[in-house]
Amino acid sequence: MNVKDVTSRNPLIIINFKTYLEATGRRAVELSREFARISNATAVSVAVAPQFADIAQVAAHMGIPVFAQHTDPIGPGAFTGQVLAESLEAAGADGTILNHSERTIRLSEIQNVISHVRGLQLLTVVCAGTAESAAAISLMEPDMVAVEPPELIGTGRAVSKEKPEVIQNAVRRIRSVNPSVKILCGAGISSGDDVYAALRLGAEGFLIASSIIKAPDPGKVVLEFCAAARRFAESK
Amino acid sequence: MNVKDVTSRNPLIIINFKTYLEATGRRAVELSREFARISNATAVSVAVAPQFADIAQVAAHMGIPVFAQHTDPIGPGAFTGQVLAESLEAAGADGTILNHSERTIRLSEIQNVISHVRGLQLLTVVCAGTAESAAAISLMEPDMVAVEPPELIGTGRAVSKEKPEVIQNAVRRIRSVNPSVKILCGAGISSGDDVYAALRLGAEGFLIASSIIKAPDPGKVVLEFCAAARRFAESK
Amino acid sequence: MNVKDVTSRNPLIIINFKTYLEATGRRAVELSREFARISNATAVSVAVAPQFADIAQVAAHMGIPVFAQHTDPIGPGAFTGQVLAESLEAAGADGTILNHSERTIRLSEIQNVISHVRGLQLLTVVCAGTAESAAAISLMEPDMVAVEPPELIGTGRAVSKEKPEVIQNAVRRIRSVNPSVKILCGAGISSGDDVYAALRLGAEGFLIASSIIKAPDPGKVVLEFCAAARRFAESK
Amino acid sequence: MNVKDVTSRNPLIIINFKTYLEATGRRAVELSREFARISNATAVSVAVAPQFADIAQVAAHMGIPVFAQHTDPIGPGAFTGQVLAESLEAAGADGTILNHSERTIRLSEIQNVISHVRGLQLLTVVCAGTAESAAAISLMEPDMVAVEPPELIGTGRAVSKEKPEVIQNAVRRIRSVNPSVKILCGAGISSGDDVYAALRLGAEGFLIASSIIKAPDPGKVVLEFCAAARRFAESK
Repeated sequence: MNVKDVTSRNPLIIINFKTYLEATGRRAVELSREFARISNATAVSVAVAPQFADIAQVAAHMGIPVFAQHTDPIGPGAFTGQVLAESLEAAGADGTILNHSERTIRLSEIQNVISHVRGLQLLTVVCAGTAESAAAISLMEPDMVAVEPPELIGTGRAVSKEKPEVIQNAVRRIRSVNPSVKILCGAGISSGDDVYAALRLGAEGFLIASSIIKAPDPGKVVLEFCAAARRFAESK
Repeated sequence: MNVKDVTSRNPLIIINFKTYLEATGRRAVELSREFARISNATAVSVAVAPQFADIAQVAAHMGIPVFAQHTDPIGPGAFTGQVLAESLEAAGADGTILNHSERTIRLSEIQNVISHVRGLQLLTVVCAGTAESAAAISLMEPDMVAVEPPELIGTGRAVSKEKPEVIQNAVRRIRSVNPSVKILCGAGISSGDDVYAALRLGAEGFLIASSIIKAPDPGKVVLEFCAAARRFAESK
Repeated sequence: MNVKDVTSRNPLIIINFKTYLEATGRRAVELSREFARISNATAVSVAVAPQFADIAQVAAHMGIPVFAQHTDPIGPGAFTGQVLAESLEAAGADGTILNHSERTIRLSEIQNVISHVRGLQLLTVVCAGTAESAAAISLMEPDMVAVEPPELIGTGRAVSKEKPEVIQNAVRRIRSVNPSVKILCGAGISSGDDVYAALRLGAEGFLIASSIIKAPDPGKVVLEFCAAARRFAESK
Repeated sequence: MNVKDVTSRNPLIIINFKTYLEATGRRAVELSREFARISNATAVSVAVAPQFADIAQVAAHMGIPVFAQHTDPIGPGAFTGQVLAESLEAAGADGTILNHSERTIRLSEIQNVISHVRGLQLLTVVCAGTAESAAAISLMEPDMVAVEPPELIGTGRAVSKEKPEVIQNAVRRIRSVNPSVKILCGAGISSGDDVYAALRLGAEGFLIASSIIKAPDPGKVVLEFCAAARRFAESK
């Protein structure tokens, strides 16, 4: 199955490795291998977002979709130290996260990068902190939009429980301007119940970092999330 | 010979791949292989600075020192889309360029990153646009400082010819505060004569990008530069 | 007539003083006085956007609405060197430009600042470079949105002539998500004909800088623009 | 006595108003008037650094030197929302703080701004967080350098007590590269004893914010600081 198929299925779980040491270098490869195995076993789509320097090795061996964590709003040229979409694509990336709250870019840049990477067949996941931002970004027609209230990132408190209206409101707002963008939910999803609840509220996938990577057994957490996603899919 | 030996010899030529398409992905690997061959043949130290996503592949096969083009002033943690020194080191980098005029960082960050990457045994090449800046940065004790008047970057006009006093003045200023930092010369070195002239003016190495990468035959240019460097070394 | 009345009338011409020396200090005051006189004589609303340090003096004497050129996304506190909305309000500002292409802010910050300054009764004019961006920003419910294709800023080529579809498309897009935001047109309006044409295309006002401030006789240009706006108003 | 005289005397106390509401608008004027009175009564030089929009009114009435909190690295031109040195000068500023830890600029920009504002007869106070940074910046030949370990800013813990070696080391480092720059001490000076101790350690002045502005009676704190400075001056 190719990447477009994998990522087009709902739900999709994208795991953001950030710059966690637990998911750097050799450990990025090992985690990706484990997550790929769980994805296959549960038939739930899972993708990973390792650091730039780890993309090539993760993409080479895994059979799991790979997203960059960021792409700079540039084309080829004299841009020392910047992240070029063409380089990510050459390293084997299937897409890129954009505008994460830890690496925001400007609105005009979001539009430019979406347009640029689409020409390279890279998928885009654009992050937003509020329902209004998520709707605004959806007008730019990314493949996916991830709603992540910054105040919940990394807290272990689930947006689906703590602020269910954030998801519902975001889904409603986004759908009023864009009928087809895939809506991901981020920030504080930390249990299978959170996953199930968010899917019921209208989320079609997840962008998750610390609750997986910082867990004592990341594979166990991914398995729990995939099982919940599976359960939801079968309940429909 | 190990990397520290290679880079400690004078002169050292570091080739910055920027985000040039001619030096991205597979072409980064091929260029690095060719440059390594020329370095061995001429016994002149040559290093490359490919894009982040290309570091692992370039470092894996080449026997040539590899520098990252930039490192972010962060440690491991929740820093989506940032460039972590530990990740570069895991990918096989031997050092990092910092504060290039196309990717400047703040003075306080320069000091922090130098200190952080030194703990990982990574070398630092910190760029500066003026003699005063180069001296200021030399107080932070990087391994190398590269003087690059921004107005000459990518122009094909050599700092050694156009502004010889820039190099002389920089060498004098830097040496007045730091006796041991290696002094690189950047910006507009485009012929063997430029290389020779800069070495005579006190430069101990070069940070070069477009005049090599954008040349019809990059290997030929590197060979010319290495031959000039060889000639200078033997003249002493 | 109070400021809300003046700025709510169509069309509204906001004159951006940028950091032009011709509109700094004493000259900011003199220009504002002249523009106020023309506004009164033609009954067309004109506002000015001087530099931060000039706001107090311009606001004190003129009887013309005054906009800041930017507001930082902060509240009161330990933010040395930032531009606080409360300080602008205390100096007599009636509103603020946000996200000008020469001083962009992030999408999430746009939303925060709009919300913050509304509490201080300050009006917001948010700039956008494309129709999509303008629509996206309109979802944040600013008082006004200014469409300024960056490639036309300061060129003397009028968006209404060169790219009429930019205005039409922007008006259509903006109205599809926000029925009431006032739509300004920027970039390259340089004659009364441009003004008239843009109003016919659906613009409700203008954000103009160089074609007025850099003119040999700025007052003459403003008078021409106001006359054209007057003509359009009477033609309806 | 003119401003150069006032600020050239040691010690000099510069009070940074940040964006504190307690020092915004009318309150900026009132505080400045009170501080001017104390300065005159104690014959200790005191200067204030209000927000941009407050500079004109503070400078108009007070007889106290006025610093901007920041200046952007630009000249006159198309720079919407930026802070132009010429505009500050026109509003009556006598100098500018640069590179405060809450508003850092790049090393190359520091050099450019110092050079630009010197042409306007504006004084420069450049902030640094470490002894190395302070020495590096002193190579750029500002009028004053302010050493402010960021970890102590706004904590109420005095650098002179908590980290006396920071001041001593900074003074030694700075003097080794620049014999004449005035050395200010910031961060956490909160009592007359702190002031006295810092002067004994080699500081020649102070850049102080919260311990004055956030005090129940700011004038009382300034009086205490000036009395301590007076005591030190007389002890020599």
